[in-house]
Amino acid sequence: MSILQRDLKDTRKLSRILSLVENRQKGYTEILKECFLLSGKSKVVGITGPPGAGKSTLTSTLIGHLRKEGACVAVLAIDPSSSFSGGAILGDRIRMLNHSLDTKVYIRSAATRGAMGGLCPAASDMITVLDAAGFDYILVETVGVGQDEIDVVRETDTVLLVLVPGLGDDIQALKAGIMEIADIFVVNKSDREGSNKLVNEIEYILSLSQSKKEWNPPVLKTVASKNEGINELIFEIKKHLNFLESTSLLAEKRKTRAALKLRRLLLEGLENRIRNGPLKSEEERKLMEAFLRKEKDPYSVAEEIVESVILEELQ
Amino acid sequence: MSILQRDLKDTRKLSRILSLVENRQKGYTEILKECFLLSGKSKVVGITGPPGAGKSTLTSTLIGHLRKEGACVAVLAIDPSSSFSGGAILGDRIRMLNHSLDTKVYIRSAATRGAMGGLCPAASDMITVLDAAGFDYILVETVGVGQDEIDVVRETDTVLLVLVPGLGDDIQALKAGIMEIADIFVVNKSDREGSNKLVNEIEYILSLSQSKKEWNPPVLKTVASKNEGINELIFEIKKHLNFLESTSLLAEKRKTRAALKLRRLLLEGLENRIRNGPLKSEEERKLMEAFLRKEKDPYSVAEEIVESVILEELQ
Repeated sequence: MSILQRDLKDTRKLSRILSLVENRQKGYTEILKECFLLSGKSKVVGITGPPGAGKSTLTSTLIGHLRKEGACVAVLAIDPSSSFSGGAILGDRIRMLNHSLDTKVYIRSAATRGAMGGLCPAASDMITVLDAAGFDYILVETVGVGQDEIDVVRETDTVLLVLVPGLGDDIQALKAGIMEIADIFVVNKSDREGSNKLVNEIEYILSLSQSKKEWNPPVLKTVASKNEGINELIFEIKKHLNFLESTSLLAEKRKTRAALKLRRLLLEGLENRIRNGPLKSEEERKLMEAFLRKEKDPYSVAEEIVESVILEELQ
Repeated sequence: MSILQRDLKDTRKLSRILSLVENRQKGYTEILKECFLLSGKSKVVGITGPPGAGKSTLTSTLIGHLRKEGACVAVLAIDPSSSFSGGAILGDRIRMLNHSLDTKVYIRSAATRGAMGGLCPAASDMITVLDAAGFDYILVETVGVGQDEIDVVRETDTVLLVLVPGLGDDIQALKAGIMEIADIFVVNKSDREGSNKLVNEIEYILSLSQSKKEWNPPVLKTVASKNEGINELIFEIKKHLNFLESTSLLAEKRKTRAALKLRRLLLEGLENRIRNGPLKSEEERKLMEAFLRKEKDPYSVAEEIVESVILEELQ
């Protein structure tokens, strides 16, 4: 057992390691290299859906049930970085605190955005760390269903899309990106009026899309706050995970995940180089003068440079 | 006058050109190259602030006043890409429609996000197109104050930060990114209770930051819906624009803008290459297998590749 492996078992040290990875502090790549090789055992469940769907309550309830089975559970909550949505999330985290004293449960949040507006690889890397730490389940909860969140849940094994009655119109908006990646549909707060209507809407939309053949996403009704429908949900989650393992799909998913990770890391690496100034400062100064005098245009220059970049340097 | 220049004067063709640029359709770089060389005459005013601050009403009122002076005005509304905020924006656009029959006013919206989650250069390029089209003023209105929006307004000449009483706590959140880039603070809906308190808060925070010396951002009170304080606002906007021209700051701003543009274009170009698969498919397939078998890790591979990239190829 390496030092890192031992540290990953210590909650306080795990937190420090995750922060180091999230903030891209010195030495984080070395840690991630080892974590990646240790990873691949956790069952990673993505929980997404519009704000107000009750994802945190559902997550909290799932933790409870999985803990009863003796499983170690980590939660990674993906928070959007907009400075105008901090409050709600904090509230959600606090609601989860009833688990926070249980050492077999680890709850952590991560931002979704990179410094330059690019997709931040940190979330995906934090999953790798939690996986290496040996949690049986990693629940990845996203707060919105923006592209960032979709990209993160795309890297989980089983994706729950949590909806609530009364968002009817949004189903159409949802159809676009997220419907396709959902493995299980959860109609939460199903004691509300309109839940059957919503179930029918979802099933109708599903009946239209021929995309998923081997797995037909079930549509479940839950009332997370009252613990209703959670056993059925856990049953379906396990059913889907077994389905993935019984087919070649799990390996496929993991390959795609690695491919996404590599692309994101490449983008981050290049982003950093660009943020730190793609050109020698003297050269850049000259260019900016030329732009100002309209002797050159940035579009032609960017084309030149991108053309000159070679991305196939693997021996 | 080139064909493009003539087309830019035709609202319908202008819309088509903007869509072509926004969607990165075939030939868009050629258009942008010419537009960049034609650009640099418009006064570009950024209007940002939290949702509900009344930015659209304010923008609409500004249009009215500027039109009275006979100025041609273009509005570029930056919409966040989250699938859960379409409604509000549509509403804002509709509120602006009272100008939409005026051919000297052009209103257009643009998304802020690139396909891979990266910053989308389209917004900044659309400003270049509108500039080339010869509008006297380009009002760039953002819907939120996320990083994307901050990056876009950073590319305007004069930045208005619009706030409303009753967001007190958020001032602290705002301080982080946006306070620094605001040239004029607008306390809108100032007939509401707490507007003086807000003005004082802003002035207090400004008194702490020594960053801006040559220009001390004024704090104005408006009630856009009642047309109150708009003359003063226009006066301050012009005062700031004159200040920029009278100093070397305008040239500096434009240089920085060109530098940002170049970096963003580089990022976009590299992003596309990465999205389309950074490696030969055969090579990638092998890599993914190696990742799956834990023979290699994506972190080391990404490092290798980024290292091998040369970004200084300008002859």
